[in-house]
Amino acid sequence: MRVLGIDPGTINLGYGIIDNGEQMRMVDCGSVSLSSQIPIEKRLCSFYSELTRIIADHHPDEVAIEEPFLGLNIRSALAIGRAQAIAVLAAANQGLPIYYYSPAQIKQQVTSYGRSNKEQMQEMVRIQLKLAQCPQTSDAADALAVAICHIQQSRLKQWLVSRSSI
Amino acid sequence: MRVLGIDPGTINLGYGIIDNGEQMRMVDCGSVSLSSQIPIEKRLCSFYSELTRIIADHHPDEVAIEEPFLGLNIRSALAIGRAQAIAVLAAANQGLPIYYYSPAQIKQQVTSYGRSNKEQMQEMVRIQLKLAQCPQTSDAADALAVAICHIQQSRLKQWLVSRSSI
Repeated sequence: MRVLGIDPGTINLGYGIIDNGEQMRMVDCGSVSLSSQIPIEKRLCSFYSELTRIIADHHPDEVAIEEPFLGLNIRSALAIGRAQAIAVLAAANQGLPIYYYSPAQIKQQVTSYGRSNKEQMQEMVRIQLKLAQCPQTSDAADALAVAICHIQQSRLKQWLVSRSSI
Repeated sequence: MRVLGIDPGTINLGYGIIDNGEQMRMVDCGSVSLSSQIPIEKRLCSFYSELTRIIADHHPDEVAIEEPFLGLNIRSALAIGRAQAIAVLAAANQGLPIYYYSPAQIKQQVTSYGRSNKEQMQEMVRIQLKLAQCPQTSDAADALAVAICHIQQSRLKQWLVSRSSI
């Protein structure tokens, strides 16, 4: 199973692709950054076409998207809602199933602690994927983290199903 | 000039198309309603393809979108952000210029009073477009109202330009 993780934003969009076999293997990751001087409609269009290209290139089976932190202010919530919608539309237009995880869920799954900081998260992403170094941007690391979170949740569900059928 | 007005929502999406010649003339209006039981990704996809179809059918020159009311709570802001992004993407993907108006701006332009209620707005939309009766849904009326607001703003700008060049 190949998972595309997305950390949506209206200025920076992170993505990370992980294959889930015997072990997890990073396929690709990166971030797209656009200046806040560029009109929002152009940024949304660029993010949409970029995500559509990433999906066409890598053929993920499932998509995991980071849900926004609910302590945001109204303007941030609006912006994140916009960014998230673009990610949802790019995935749903290709018929891909989408899963959502909150920042606390992701931290809990990836670092076993719901309040770990950015550096701890990035280091745990590096260790779990056996990377020589951390991903170049924190948005790419966050996107890999949401993909790892989804893979671990899926493994847990499969294990529970296999236990209940014994 | 043909203007498409959009009142974006994640359950109801209103649209209204107005030709701006000597007088304003309503071309079409309506609303798309989807149950909240339908997953959000399917609703966003449906609204996107519906708006893309409306744009392809009617060839508007400009698009006017209602901005959300900023007194919303965080969850509402997220939802409206998602709905607005879909409208923006459908228009921007066709290269159409997009204009945003706040509810207060729309009320002020359409009814000359920033705090008019829904019924007063709908009645003023009916009168200004010389319709026999109000549009069937309030979302369609709101979409026509944002298109009227944009047309009146454009006329005002043109008038100011013509005055300054005398």
